[in-house]
Amino acid sequence: MVVVMQVGATEAQIEAVIDQLNENGFDVHRSSGTQQTVLGAIGVQPDFDIRHIRLLEGVGDVHRVTEPFKFASRAWKKENSIISVGDADIGGEEVTVMAGPCAVESEDQIERTAAHVAACGVTILRGGAFKPRSSPYSFQGLGLPGLELMREAANRHGLSVITEVMDVAHIDSILPLTDIVQVGARNMQNYTLLKGLGKIRKPVLLKRGLMATIQEWLMSAEYIMAEGNQDIILCERGIRTFETYTRNTLDLSAVPVVRDKSHLPIIVDPSHGTGIRDKVIPMARAAVAAGADGLLIETHPDPEHALSDGPQSLYFDQFEELMRQISLIAEAIGRSVGKLQAT
Amino acid sequence: MVVVMQVGATEAQIEAVIDQLNENGFDVHRSSGTQQTVLGAIGVQPDFDIRHIRLLEGVGDVHRVTEPFKFASRAWKKENSIISVGDADIGGEEVTVMAGPCAVESEDQIERTAAHVAACGVTILRGGAFKPRSSPYSFQGLGLPGLELMREAANRHGLSVITEVMDVAHIDSILPLTDIVQVGARNMQNYTLLKGLGKIRKPVLLKRGLMATIQEWLMSAEYIMAEGNQDIILCERGIRTFETYTRNTLDLSAVPVVRDKSHLPIIVDPSHGTGIRDKVIPMARAAVAAGADGLLIETHPDPEHALSDGPQSLYFDQFEELMRQISLIAEAIGRSVGKLQAT
Amino acid sequence: MVVVMQVGATEAQIEAVIDQLNENGFDVHRSSGTQQTVLGAIGVQPDFDIRHIRLLEGVGDVHRVTEPFKFASRAWKKENSIISVGDADIGGEEVTVMAGPCAVESEDQIERTAAHVAACGVTILRGGAFKPRSSPYSFQGLGLPGLELMREAANRHGLSVITEVMDVAHIDSILPLTDIVQVGARNMQNYTLLKGLGKIRKPVLLKRGLMATIQEWLMSAEYIMAEGNQDIILCERGIRTFETYTRNTLDLSAVPVVRDKSHLPIIVDPSHGTGIRDKVIPMARAAVAAGADGLLIETHPDPEHALSDGPQSLYFDQFEELMRQISLIAEAIGRSVGKLQAT
Amino acid sequence: MVVVMQVGATEAQIEAVIDQLNENGFDVHRSSGTQQTVLGAIGVQPDFDIRHIRLLEGVGDVHRVTEPFKFASRAWKKENSIISVGDADIGGEEVTVMAGPCAVESEDQIERTAAHVAACGVTILRGGAFKPRSSPYSFQGLGLPGLELMREAANRHGLSVITEVMDVAHIDSILPLTDIVQVGARNMQNYTLLKGLGKIRKPVLLKRGLMATIQEWLMSAEYIMAEGNQDIILCERGIRTFETYTRNTLDLSAVPVVRDKSHLPIIVDPSHGTGIRDKVIPMARAAVAAGADGLLIETHPDPEHALSDGPQSLYFDQFEELMRQISLIAEAIGRSVGKLQAT
Repeated sequence: MVVVMQVGATEAQIEAVIDQLNENGFDVHRSSGTQQTVLGAIGVQPDFDIRHIRLLEGVGDVHRVTEPFKFASRAWKKENSIISVGDADIGGEEVTVMAGPCAVESEDQIERTAAHVAACGVTILRGGAFKPRSSPYSFQGLGLPGLELMREAANRHGLSVITEVMDVAHIDSILPLTDIVQVGARNMQNYTLLKGLGKIRKPVLLKRGLMATIQEWLMSAEYIMAEGNQDIILCERGIRTFETYTRNTLDLSAVPVVRDKSHLPIIVDPSHGTGIRDKVIPMARAAVAAGADGLLIETHPDPEHALSDGPQSLYFDQFEELMRQISLIAEAIGRSVGKLQAT
Repeated sequence: MVVVMQVGATEAQIEAVIDQLNENGFDVHRSSGTQQTVLGAIGVQPDFDIRHIRLLEGVGDVHRVTEPFKFASRAWKKENSIISVGDADIGGEEVTVMAGPCAVESEDQIERTAAHVAACGVTILRGGAFKPRSSPYSFQGLGLPGLELMREAANRHGLSVITEVMDVAHIDSILPLTDIVQVGARNMQNYTLLKGLGKIRKPVLLKRGLMATIQEWLMSAEYIMAEGNQDIILCERGIRTFETYTRNTLDLSAVPVVRDKSHLPIIVDPSHGTGIRDKVIPMARAAVAAGADGLLIETHPDPEHALSDGPQSLYFDQFEELMRQISLIAEAIGRSVGKLQAT
Repeated sequence: MVVVMQVGATEAQIEAVIDQLNENGFDVHRSSGTQQTVLGAIGVQPDFDIRHIRLLEGVGDVHRVTEPFKFASRAWKKENSIISVGDADIGGEEVTVMAGPCAVESEDQIERTAAHVAACGVTILRGGAFKPRSSPYSFQGLGLPGLELMREAANRHGLSVITEVMDVAHIDSILPLTDIVQVGARNMQNYTLLKGLGKIRKPVLLKRGLMATIQEWLMSAEYIMAEGNQDIILCERGIRTFETYTRNTLDLSAVPVVRDKSHLPIIVDPSHGTGIRDKVIPMARAAVAAGADGLLIETHPDPEHALSDGPQSLYFDQFEELMRQISLIAEAIGRSVGKLQAT
Repeated sequence: MVVVMQVGATEAQIEAVIDQLNENGFDVHRSSGTQQTVLGAIGVQPDFDIRHIRLLEGVGDVHRVTEPFKFASRAWKKENSIISVGDADIGGEEVTVMAGPCAVESEDQIERTAAHVAACGVTILRGGAFKPRSSPYSFQGLGLPGLELMREAANRHGLSVITEVMDVAHIDSILPLTDIVQVGARNMQNYTLLKGLGKIRKPVLLKRGLMATIQEWLMSAEYIMAEGNQDIILCERGIRTFETYTRNTLDLSAVPVVRDKSHLPIIVDPSHGTGIRDKVIPMARAAVAAGADGLLIETHPDPEHALSDGPQSLYFDQFEELMRQISLIAEAIGRSVGKLQAT
């Protein structure tokens, strides 16, 4: 922590600040210029509330000098983390595509989707069984029976499964049926849930909250990691801004920023990030070009009749075309997409 | 729903849209001008996803014509809802002040605080037993023993109790010890929790999420109300904006807006809304002047040593002065503050 | 400036940073802890781009330790600035109300408005002659003839005049006709205009840009002050956020923040800040309660037929009621409103 | 315009709204359902303030049905506009790169830069002669002599020139020396400047304001186009959000949105959009992958000693590498970059 005293702060004020810092266990180094004094406070107190110091008399400003997260930080682990799930090495050289419907609706729907995405080179099948909906009057998902249908379809086509968990009480029943557990944007700071997921031994995909800074997002990863689960995949899915032509503003600059700050893999969800089908393809291409480790994409055999988020689900032929385009983009930056490099 | 066709949309496109609307159960009224056709689609489908129509060929834009919430709306209930808790009629003529520490820390701390706020005219004691903290390394609250200490202190001083619940699994244990259950900003869209609170028979204070539009906030109230619990108190506590000099931007215009859209009482939390002690008093005055039905205020016998949010907690003498000032403001607009009108 | 080296930065990296700082004229104080080194760089270089240092190898983070503005800062001038214009002492004990139509439309309109607001205790007449409109197809104002009509009406009723200038080329013609020159939100960073206004000898009211931080706003005041004109009145008028029920989000916490950071008076414009008539009165009350030095209010003899911003203009009887209410609020916090204290 | 009456609006209220609409020149079509009445108001009044209707009794909501801009809209011109400047066809199949230093600093600096970017396949040289700086104490540019140096360097290397104009009074002197006139983000709503540029016969590059919605941006293009100049190039350069790790949030989804709404070319400035050198390359790649028609990039022979924005300027070898990478990306989506396709 660095404490900048006001111009004209008195010696007594400076000493009172030093005392307070010492009392809280910090080592203090003092730098006095002709106009102003700056105090460097060094110590290991990740949860110290710097506002305590900011309120002392004579204090101009206070800056935190260390990131408040540890396990999630690049300083903690220099090399990129690679998380292996079935055929996918998430965070490795390949760009991993996770695809499927927004919600599992029927055996036929999930089977047809699994068959199609597997044929396109996808390794991980996505699909919601418990759906967080902003209206209590909307379709809330099929629940566990839906998840079982997805598991079976995935097995038939050699795919892994990712699905969302909405409450800590559901973890036990969901866990045997999925390979990756997804935390939705609205639950990014549901700390009870995060702690619960810290105790499991399967990877967690953590979506960025609509209004979460990158630092808060990494702090939420830290919550899980502090409990022992290091396998976190970050997922940018758009933030809320003043712009209303798009549902959210997909913050692709989060990709290189996370790369700097953290060793964790980062993927992008252009389906929720844009909210409308014809914006998904250009933004998916852009995400790969920006260096994302993967994509989370919604596709549906019959988007017009989807029970949830149909307007942002790709038609099967669009999805196929998307895979073709991002393979070219990946190649242009020295990567490949899923199993496709073999063809 | 209103569908605005593009200039130059063909007759076939217009008819395809009408068919699609009819198929979804809407009555359609068509208005054709010289340049453009507008379709009015009338029907009762609160969860219809209007993006389905927006994607059809020839469609320019689609507008929802009804608010997606019902029980929370002013249209549903014309007169203001008044929620009685102990000596307080929240939403009535009096301005209700709920005050206490951020977190319950010890018997002595909560007893001294309860005594002080009761002496100042407060009717409801606040205090956290389970704390949502953005860092896993911060103080997480005393849990149920803390809540028991608060209940006893409140009883000794004739106060009601409000405390936060963080997870649906905690409701049963917390409920016997509190009079109002608080949902924190980060849980505003924790739908599992909201549904659980819809089944209880005590009032719920619902904080606005940092990232939530007023419409989303009222939709979350609707989640609780749709399950049968109509006693919701809304609490504005600041939204996230680009400004960084303050922790959040307290959106006081939410007060008159909610007054228009809903019959539910709305109170303001200037402690979290500003994050720093010396901004709490002016913003508390402003909230009352804007017409808020109450305030949620943090005060602590020794803010420098508070385990949570000390920098935004008022000293006892500041709290007393605050009560004096808001009483004058309340009087200026024809209201009064708590029991103080008797003195 | 404070430079926080990364954990594990090498001695060579630290020395390279020190050299670079010395080369740029800074005195450097070094604090080395067991884990990390912090460098305090002290010197007077208000325009140094700290990103130069942030990019050096081994650097973790860089913090500016002084505000980038000087004349506008509270450090520069401890006591509040009071700007006298006719009968008003802006920034003094009285709350100054500036009122009038959005745009001057006719002799009759401005005369009736001047007469009404003067009777209600207002001292400064507002009205636009040149209007910044987001559409090129909207009414653009009467220009100088409009300003002359307003000047005459103001003189007849003993009022001072405030009007907006949109371009540096207009200053000379507008200046003889007005007492305060207003800079609109969209021009807050029109530096050519700001420099031009630095050379005049009349007060400037500087509106906050829709997306301007408080720091940027004070930097724009600095632009004017650096040229010699110290008489700046700041005006909060709402910032842009994700909320869409209101036109803008009126950031009333800017009032106490500016009070801390600067000696300049700050007033609030609830008309543009809310954009809708029935929200103006509660937010005007809230602004006074928060400690604003004044208000800028739109009122019109016939809002339904106003050529600009009619929906946010108060009816005359509403304006009278507003003056009555804010007088009570002002009294509650030990202030008074304009001439009204005499009655 | 569509007017949605409240549930329970009376017949008298409905008729009053219809009268008011007729009085304002609209044709009204009425749709009455069992619960609610919707009025379609059709007419050509691009500047009508819909809040007038929203305030009438019984009105629930009002929606604008047409975009408020005309010449800038895709409805007005179906095919993409291509703007030819020297060797570049902006908006055509080639991706156009405009590159150079933030500010012209010396003859040597601009000559070296021109030589380098020309060798890399760039067709348009950028450089500021008049710099808008947020601090009055920062380098403000060399003015006209700087522009002359850039013109000469450009001529020597067969490049066209783009430079920023900050005030309407400068247009006449700048115009003979540049091929494209740039409007900076802070001036996006400087209407005096926009009108002035509507009268010239050279292309205008219009940067999006930090706080501007895409609709407002297109309205500013409309201001220029309404005066007769149809050659507008839009430039996304980042919007302001709550995120602080990056200087701005580059809104790449603006690329496909503008493509839908308008026929005008859109390019991206990743240098200002990210503010830091090592984020420029991934975001430039992403912009091309998203479908941008070009890039505006800062490069400098000696970024450490640049007088303005050095930290976001690329080293020459980085720039060369960037050109190589975006050529591959462009090829992957069936486009090419500047003259490079010949090699």
